[in-house]
Amino acid sequence: MKNFDITEDPHRRFNPLINEWVLVSPHRAKRPWQGQNETISTEALPNYDPTCYLCPGNVRANGVSNPKYESSFVFENDFAAMKQDEIMFEEDIKHTFFKAQPERGISRVVCFSPRHDLTLPEMNIDGIENIIKTWQKEYTDLGNIKYINHVQIFENKGSVMGCSNPHPHGQIWAQSSLPTQVEKTQKNLKAYFDKNGKTMLADYLQAELRSGERIVIENDHFVALVPFWATWPYETMIISKRTFGKITDFTADETTSFATILKQLTSKYDNVFNTSFPYSSGIHQSPTDGLEHAEWHFHMHFYPPLLRSATVKKFMVGYEMLGESQRDITPEKSAEILRQLSDVHYKTKLK
Amino acid sequence: MKNFDITEDPHRRFNPLINEWVLVSPHRAKRPWQGQNETISTEALPNYDPTCYLCPGNVRANGVSNPKYESSFVFENDFAAMKQDEIMFEEDIKHTFFKAQPERGISRVVCFSPRHDLTLPEMNIDGIENIIKTWQKEYTDLGNIKYINHVQIFENKGSVMGCSNPHPHGQIWAQSSLPTQVEKTQKNLKAYFDKNGKTMLADYLQAELRSGERIVIENDHFVALVPFWATWPYETMIISKRTFGKITDFTADETTSFATILKQLTSKYDNVFNTSFPYSSGIHQSPTDGLEHAEWHFHMHFYPPLLRSATVKKFMVGYEMLGESQRDITPEKSAEILRQLSDVHYKTKLK
Ligand SMILES: O=P(O)(O)O[C@H]1O[C@H](CO)[C@@H](O)[C@H](O)[C@H]1O
Ligand SMILES: O=P(O)(O)O[C@H]1O[C@H](CO)[C@@H](O)[C@H](O)[C@H]1O
Repeated sequence: MKNFDITEDPHRRFNPLINEWVLVSPHRAKRPWQGQNETISTEALPNYDPTCYLCPGNVRANGVSNPKYESSFVFENDFAAMKQDEIMFEEDIKHTFFKAQPERGISRVVCFSPRHDLTLPEMNIDGIENIIKTWQKEYTDLGNIKYINHVQIFENKGSVMGCSNPHPHGQIWAQSSLPTQVEKTQKNLKAYFDKNGKTMLADYLQAELRSGERIVIENDHFVALVPFWATWPYETMIISKRTFGKITDFTADETTSFATILKQLTSKYDNVFNTSFPYSSGIHQSPTDGLEHAEWHFHMHFYPPLLRSATVKKFMVGYEMLGESQRDITPEKSAEILRQLSDVHYKTKLK
Repeated sequence: MKNFDITEDPHRRFNPLINEWVLVSPHRAKRPWQGQNETISTEALPNYDPTCYLCPGNVRANGVSNPKYESSFVFENDFAAMKQDEIMFEEDIKHTFFKAQPERGISRVVCFSPRHDLTLPEMNIDGIENIIKTWQKEYTDLGNIKYINHVQIFENKGSVMGCSNPHPHGQIWAQSSLPTQVEKTQKNLKAYFDKNGKTMLADYLQAELRSGERIVIENDHFVALVPFWATWPYETMIISKRTFGKITDFTADETTSFATILKQLTSKYDNVFNTSFPYSSGIHQSPTDGLEHAEWHFHMHFYPPLLRSATVKKFMVGYEMLGESQRDITPEKSAEILRQLSDVHYKTKLK
C-alpha cells in the first residue's frame, strides 16, 4: 500500500470557517477540455463611454444623472434585491415547511473611478485608498442604521461573474439578517474563540506563515494566501496580521498596506493569463448588530473561476452542487504560480 | 406599515434539507439585463458523430473503443476525480488547520442512448426506463464494494453547465465518504425522523399537495414540484409518494412512473424557452454504508440556471457566494409557468 501523498493522491480537505470539505484531485489537472470556452473581451475600452450608466455625468435607467465625480461615487442600486420598507409580519408557527420572513435592506453601487477603463490593479495606490475610505464610510453609515445588522461589501469582476458593466465598480448589500454564509462562519469563529481565547484566523495565519507554502504576498500588515481549503482554482484570502474585526479599525498605515496588497494581488491575477482576471471578491468582517464580536478577524475572499486559460473556467456543477466542491490543482501549486508571477501589471510593462 | 406579502416583498425562505436560507426578491425580476449572454447551440446534431468519444464504436482518449451499444452504456471515466487505490494514512492530530484525508472512489460515465442527438426528453419511455435500470444496477454494484459508502448519480446538461459533449450522458461518482451536501441533508433528515417517526419529505410532500401552489406534475407514484426554498429560477425536485430510500426500491410501476415524470418534466423545461434547457440534476438517496437509514426518502434535484431567456442565466456570484443564494422570481410563479406549459416536447409538435 502506498503512503498518502497530498501532492498526488485524491483527497478531501476541511474548511474550518464553514465546516465543510472540498474534494481535491491533483492528478486531474491534465484532462483535456472540449467544453465551453468563455468569451473574454480584449477590446480596449475608452476612458469615457457615453452609453455607460456608471460614467460621470451620464443618465441612469431611473432618469437620474450621475454627478461629474472625480474619485469614487456611491449610489443606491436602481434594481435592489431588498427594500427599506418596514413590513408587518406575524410568524405562523404552524408552518413547519413554509418558513419565510420579510427582509429589509439597502443595496448600493460603488464606482471605483470616473475612468471607464481603469480596473482595480491598474489604479494607483491613492485611488485604491480612496475606495477603502469609501468602504469604511459605507460600513459606518449603513451599520449605524438601526435595523441593519450586516454590511456585505463585494465586487463581481468580468462578464463571466455576472457583471453587467465593465466600468470598475463593486456593490454593498446591507440587511437586517446575517446571510447564510456569514452566519456559518460566525458560528465557527465563535466556537474557536470561546475555546482558545484567540481568533481562529490569528492562529491560522501563524500556521500558514510558519509553513510558507501557500503564501502569495506578505507585507507589514496583511498576508494574501491560497487557503489550505480553497475551492476555486486561484482562490485567495487576504488576512490582517493584527487582530481586529472590521475595516473601520484600520490605522493609516494599514490602509496603505491594504491598498498595496490589493493592487499587487489583482495585478498577479491579471498576469496569470495576461487578461483581466474575472472574480467575485468580498470582505467578511464583524456584523453591525452592536454586539462585541471578539471572534471576528478582518479578511477578504477572492473567488476567481478561471482554470486553464483566459477562456476555460472551472464549473461548479453536478457533483459540486449535489455533493461537494471539487478542484483539480492543489492550493500549493496555485500559490506557487501566483507567488512567482510579477506583482506589476502586464499592461504597465507594455507601456 | 404594510402587511407582509410573499408575492411582492423581499424575504428569506428556509431550506430544512440543508438548514440554510435563500433571499427572494420578487420585485427584481423586472430589472433590465446588459450583461453576458450565453451561447446556445441551435445547430441540429447528427445521429452519429464520428468525432464524438461517446458514440458507439468510436475510440476514446485512452485508445479504447466503445462497443456498438444499442441502449445505454457505462464506462469508467478516463479522467476520474478519484482513484480506487487504497492509500496508507495516519491522521496527524497536531494539524488543527491542515486537515486532509485521502479519498477513494470510482467515476463512471453513463451514455443514455447510442443516438448522438437524442436528449432525455426526446427519448421514449422504454429508453428512459432503461436508463433507470442502469442507474439501479450501478447503485447496487458500486454500493456493494466494501469501501464505497455513497453513490452520486447526476447529469450536467448543456455547455453552460460544464458539459463538454452534447451526446446525452450522465455521470456517477461513488466514494468512501459522504459528500458535504449529502452529509448536511442526512443530518437534517435524521433529526426530523427521530423527532417525528416519519421522513421529512413524506410530510413535506403532503403539505405541498395540500397547498398545490408549487406542484408541477403529479402521477400515481411521483410528484415534481418547485420547492418552497428553491434557489435556481426553475429549480425542481421529484419526490416519491411512497416512502423508500433508494432507486433499487422501485416497483415495476414506479419505474414506469418515474420514466414518465422525467420525460414530462424535462420536456416542460425545453418548452420554457423552446431550447434544450441546461441543468445539473442528481439523485439524493440512502448511502451505501450498510446502515438502515430509515430517514432517507428518495428524491431527485434539478438545478437549471436559465432565468429570462435561452441566453440569460442567473449568476450565483458575489453576494450569493459570500452571503446567501438569491432569486428574482418566486417559486410559486416558476411553478405556475412550468405547470401551464405542455409536457409534450416542442420538437415533437414540429414534426
Ligand atoms: O466530468 P466532466 O463532464 O468533464 O466535467 C464536468 O462535471 C464535473 C462533475 O460535476 C465537474 O467537476 C467539472 O468541473 C465539469 O466540467
Ligand atoms: O447586481 P448586478 O451586478 O446587476 O448582478 C450581479 O450581482 C448580483 C449580486 O451578486 C447577483 O445577484 C446577480 O445575479 C448578478 O448578475
